[in-house]
Amino acid sequence: MDLISLDDVSRAAEVLAGVAVHTPLLPAPWAARGRPGAPAIGDDAAVGGSASGGSAGAGAPGEFWVKPESLQPIGAFKIRGAYFAIASLPAARRAAGVITHSSGNHAQAVAYAARAFGVPCVVVMPDVAAPMKIAATEALGARVVLVAPPEREPATLKLAAAEGYSIIPPYDHPDVIAGQGTVGLEIVADLPVVDVVLVPVGGGGLASGVATAVKALRPSATVIGVEPELAADAQESLREGRVVTWSTERTYRTVADGLRTPTSELTLAHLAARLDGIITVTEDEILDTVGALARSARLVVEPSGAVSVAAYLYHRAELPAGRTVAVISGGNLDPALLARLLAPAGD
Amino acid sequence: MDLISLDDVSRAAEVLAGVAVHTPLLPAPWAARGRPGAPAIGDDAAVGGSASGGSAGAGAPGEFWVKPESLQPIGAFKIRGAYFAIASLPAARRAAGVITHSSGNHAQAVAYAARAFGVPCVVVMPDVAAPMKIAATEALGARVVLVAPPEREPATLKLAAAEGYSIIPPYDHPDVIAGQGTVGLEIVADLPVVDVVLVPVGGGGLASGVATAVKALRPSATVIGVEPELAADAQESLREGRVVTWSTERTYRTVADGLRTPTSELTLAHLAARLDGIITVTEDEILDTVGALARSARLVVEPSGAVSVAAYLYHRAELPAGRTVAVISGGNLDPALLARLLAPAGD
Repeated sequence: MDLISLDDVSRAAEVLAGVAVHTPLLPAPWAARGRPGAPAIGDDAAVGGSASGGSAGAGAPGEFWVKPESLQPIGAFKIRGAYFAIASLPAARRAAGVITHSSGNHAQAVAYAARAFGVPCVVVMPDVAAPMKIAATEALGARVVLVAPPEREPATLKLAAAEGYSIIPPYDHPDVIAGQGTVGLEIVADLPVVDVVLVPVGGGGLASGVATAVKALRPSATVIGVEPELAADAQESLREGRVVTWSTERTYRTVADGLRTPTSELTLAHLAARLDGIITVTEDEILDTVGALARSARLVVEPSGAVSVAAYLYHRAELPAGRTVAVISGGNLDPALLARLLAPAGD
Repeated sequence: MDLISLDDVSRAAEVLAGVAVHTPLLPAPWAARGRPGAPAIGDDAAVGGSASGGSAGAGAPGEFWVKPESLQPIGAFKIRGAYFAIASLPAARRAAGVITHSSGNHAQAVAYAARAFGVPCVVVMPDVAAPMKIAATEALGARVVLVAPPEREPATLKLAAAEGYSIIPPYDHPDVIAGQGTVGLEIVADLPVVDVVLVPVGGGGLASGVATAVKALRPSATVIGVEPELAADAQESLREGRVVTWSTERTYRTVADGLRTPTSELTLAHLAARLDGIITVTEDEILDTVGALARSARLVVEPSGAVSVAAYLYHRAELPAGRTVAVISGGNLDPALLARLLAPAGD
């Protein structure tokens, strides 16, 4: 199977300049002290400074940064892959419109990118999707088509065929993977001496792209995927050497709703070739980390986006030493959940 | 009175490279729709994309970005001025140590910077300061000296004289103003076509520095200060042409605790010469904006840091049209307050 290359990611970066935010690497010395407990906001014990923006100097081994993709328009890295995939369509096909099925961040990413190109966009969602997510996608100019959950894929294929829409998949596409890989390019550009990169794994598009870019530019670096223990299908797939799909009943146990999807043949091939391993985190660790990130990093992060930081906070012994960057993949969570995690009695 | 120049700010920027984070400009199209009401997280209606990082293209008039200084180490822009002021001390004086009196973000900024230089640091705080703030400052390696509130300044002077410590004031110093001005340098570097900059005004150091940099590099831009209606002493000072100090009883009515301080002769001279005006916001507008920023921009922002965005959301008619950047000055707020603002019944 053909894997994407660093050149593909570099091409994506050119297209995404002025579209995706080049998110900073934020020093997170508060995390270096281990278990977060209940760190106060502003409680930043730090030694030395370090910064993003192309000029981050070599730090002491053990330094830790987060890369907040939660600060992208639409609040997640998904804007990168969706935009690049749409940009890569032949102009005439793109003009006919795009379609996807998703009720998550990918839906809004495709809608946002389609609007930027001024082309029609249809998003197929399960009829059980939260009204807030439907409204958010419609607010970006997309037409939302609601179907019974098992009908999502057939309805998408049917509409695409009937109307000439191009399907923009959430991760099972080389252009989408190349777009997500620009996260890795930015990490190495801003911290050339990076030793360890931690990246959430759902369908595997982000991890595939990031591993491609980081390993090509900095072969000595270790790139490690992070999954919820309750949706560790990618870890099992890597172990088995084939795409293992966990039942919806199993994966829906995790609060990290963006990481419930299985890998694809394409993403698994990238992960098998380029990722150094996958570690898992518990639900308590994920939720504690969402609270710690709000208190200590002043970032609103969704559970799926927090797993990489949770791995650093709670599983340091399983990680190589060195300058570590955790990718925070997104920030779209229910405000009421964040309120509960921040309330005095809540943590 | 001598005002600082663009050269001073440029010198500060060189010193701060690799210390302060070059914070991104984050497109905030959700704000363009006016009153925030209760926007859902992820509810981002956007036209076109735009980005930070030196390559932000010209956007349509009316576009809006935020610059989140809340993402600095210690959670506020104060790191810039404090670090540059300490860096600018003669080496022997610096080695003897630094001192300041503050119970806010400046205390942590001085402690953080002193630790980076490996020099002693004393912070004088009122004995009524919140234990959390004392602990946070001590966690950064500073010695905290508690005194009765009226004793803060005399105690600081006495300790400085006795021990040879250099006083690092929160805003009444040219090096501090030059350091804060690097925020303005970054704005123009990332968005050369900026039309309007909104900046919170407390003691006036940030606004003085930002106005200096922005007006020098982009004379056509308008730089507007924002104050709480309940602590509008800078607005009155500009009108009267002299430093007007409001009583503690008056300024303590505002939730924006970082903006209760009066200007100084030095900052007022900068503001009079370079700021285009000051507008005020209400307490309700400030708190609504803190909630909206968490929900729609995924940022944890303190009330003082939110006033600039509140001005854009609620006082658009008082602002010039055009590409607007609001500086979010800091993110250190009580997690319980944020929880209340995000709770379903809370807004």
